[in-house]
Amino acid sequence: MTRIEDLETPAIVVDLDIVERNLRSLAAYAREHGLNLRPHTKTHKVPAIAKMQIESGCSGVTVAKTGEAEVMAQAGLDDILVHYPVYGVEKAARLAALARSRRVTVAVDSMVTARQLSAAAVAAGATIRLLVEADVGMRRCGVAPKDTGALAKAVSVLPGIHFQGLTFYPGHIWAPPSEQAPALRQVSEQVDIAIASIEAEGLKCETVSGGSTPTAYNSHLVDRLTEMRPGTYVFNDRNTIGVGACTVDDCALRVMVTVVSTAVPGRVVVDGGTKTFAADRWLSGEKTGFGLVPAYPDMRVEGLSEEHGHLDVSESAKRLTIGDKLTIVPNHVCACVNMHQQIWFHRGGVVEGSWNVAGRGLVR
Amino acid sequence: MTRIEDLETPAIVVDLDIVERNLRSLAAYAREHGLNLRPHTKTHKVPAIAKMQIESGCSGVTVAKTGEAEVMAQAGLDDILVHYPVYGVEKAARLAALARSRRVTVAVDSMVTARQLSAAAVAAGATIRLLVEADVGMRRCGVAPKDTGALAKAVSVLPGIHFQGLTFYPGHIWAPPSEQAPALRQVSEQVDIAIASIEAEGLKCETVSGGSTPTAYNSHLVDRLTEMRPGTYVFNDRNTIGVGACTVDDCALRVMVTVVSTAVPGRVVVDGGTKTFAADRWLSGEKTGFGLVPAYPDMRVEGLSEEHGHLDVSESAKRLTIGDKLTIVPNHVCACVNMHQQIWFHRGGVVEGSWNVAGRGLVR
Repeated sequence: MTRIEDLETPAIVVDLDIVERNLRSLAAYAREHGLNLRPHTKTHKVPAIAKMQIESGCSGVTVAKTGEAEVMAQAGLDDILVHYPVYGVEKAARLAALARSRRVTVAVDSMVTARQLSAAAVAAGATIRLLVEADVGMRRCGVAPKDTGALAKAVSVLPGIHFQGLTFYPGHIWAPPSEQAPALRQVSEQVDIAIASIEAEGLKCETVSGGSTPTAYNSHLVDRLTEMRPGTYVFNDRNTIGVGACTVDDCALRVMVTVVSTAVPGRVVVDGGTKTFAADRWLSGEKTGFGLVPAYPDMRVEGLSEEHGHLDVSESAKRLTIGDKLTIVPNHVCACVNMHQQIWFHRGGVVEGSWNVAGRGLVR
Repeated sequence: MTRIEDLETPAIVVDLDIVERNLRSLAAYAREHGLNLRPHTKTHKVPAIAKMQIESGCSGVTVAKTGEAEVMAQAGLDDILVHYPVYGVEKAARLAALARSRRVTVAVDSMVTARQLSAAAVAAGATIRLLVEADVGMRRCGVAPKDTGALAKAVSVLPGIHFQGLTFYPGHIWAPPSEQAPALRQVSEQVDIAIASIEAEGLKCETVSGGSTPTAYNSHLVDRLTEMRPGTYVFNDRNTIGVGACTVDDCALRVMVTVVSTAVPGRVVVDGGTKTFAADRWLSGEKTGFGLVPAYPDMRVEGLSEEHGHLDVSESAKRLTIGDKLTIVPNHVCACVNMHQQIWFHRGGVVEGSWNVAGRGLVR
């Protein structure tokens, strides 16, 4: 029997009981509100976890990269949304190849990418489904809601393409769930404008896809939504805690590190830095700190070098010595997982196995 | 013939002419000042580049992780410094195994790690060389300079151990090279104190190792230095430019990205975010921006999502369209390389091949 404390560090460890609870809980919410759940697998990039999500009631998966779509498809996932404005003849051909025997949907916000995907689909004898992306306030991708109809119309007549509907990402909403209603009502209005624009062209949105982890349990406030796409909810992280969308007990993934140096007074160095945690800043409060130490909340992860984590322990009564192990909740779990090829999973601290992060590093 | 513009993106591309010039230039400086050059290979994690560094006149290599030491050793590098306070019975055994047929040196700042390495060396019938680390101002690892003698003495009598000398990392010096002299004189004084403390125990420092890329060409200001350990100098990056230690023409590595969305006015989205560039902030100026666009310096890489780079192009006369390719100098090249399994190399834009980033993701 191996306990997580026995693992060589740094290591990322996932509590399966918490994962299952997180999956069950959101699946129940989605069912209650008649919403499809299509989680973004960028958070874990592990096909086995994607399958757990499907088993929990999800209707399909979301990915960001063509390579991630391939990894999920090879593992048997057969309903994949690539929520990215994929550009590139080679990438389009790879997606079209997948679409020959699976349901492949892509988000687009221009005719350039739509035409590339159309040509690839025709060449492969496949159909690719397209969602037209609207910008509902984040100002990243997506056309203005009033312009979605024109794009949808142009997309819908492309050969090899099935116009599937509308998509958006409300990533600009970063408030506690109890305070999100006004912003989500604005999003709902923008979505209504987009749908009206599309319907004015005689088209129907079979799918209206949106959502994030912070807004997950408020998804029903977007009236016309049919599908939600949270990613982080499977593990949660310090940012999710910070925005008030979970508690530390909902954080399934921890970084296990070992104290390697106590030579500098008031400081403790652990064996994980930005190449273990990722350099992502905390998005809440004073935006300081790089992780949370649940066992000793008075220790501050005040800085990260590439391979060193700097803990300020001056406020803590606990005296750490070299060799002590700590588990730390990272700021941004999606970025943290991306640093590791292996995730250990456990129940109650007893290691049950590990997953290969198969989709990791597939940048293209 | 493939040009870098023909590559699927995102891709990291390295200009071999610039790499060779960077290696030659610092090797000449080191020779001129009678210093050994032992570059930190965490920047690239590629054995072939480490070999180029050896051919340019370096005496050995530095790594941060046990796994990186193994990768370099397997590739034939036979003089490896693990500049990290390695803790862990398994890691110590792996390093001892390497030390049976190679010169392996480890930095220590405690007897806990030194004793572990000693036990492993004895068990393997090997000798591990230890450098005692002093803190000369960064407050990360290292004992106080006056205390190095006691640690060196205790280390020197451990079986399987050869006391090799002193090490330090002046990572706290972040000023233009022309303004570093006062800080480096302070470092030199601390180093003198440490050496005196060690010599008072009847021990000799065969090696006095230190240095960083920003201070590289001022290494001779630390009087007793015998060995310098810069990493970033092989590629350089926006931080190196920012601190005044190189120009954009010295930046060998660029991230090649493609414009994938122009739907939001004033914004352009490229197909690389934190999982392509790393989330490391710029360390200079207002600490804003995530990269430099050499061809269009008036474009600002103002934000990164995981897979989206947000360019503010409102100040630029250049009108980008979807499919346009850009090369961007990342803030922190060591962190950027760590996101990629493959580095393309070229001369004058003509691709000559690619390297596998063999040491990537070896977190333990």
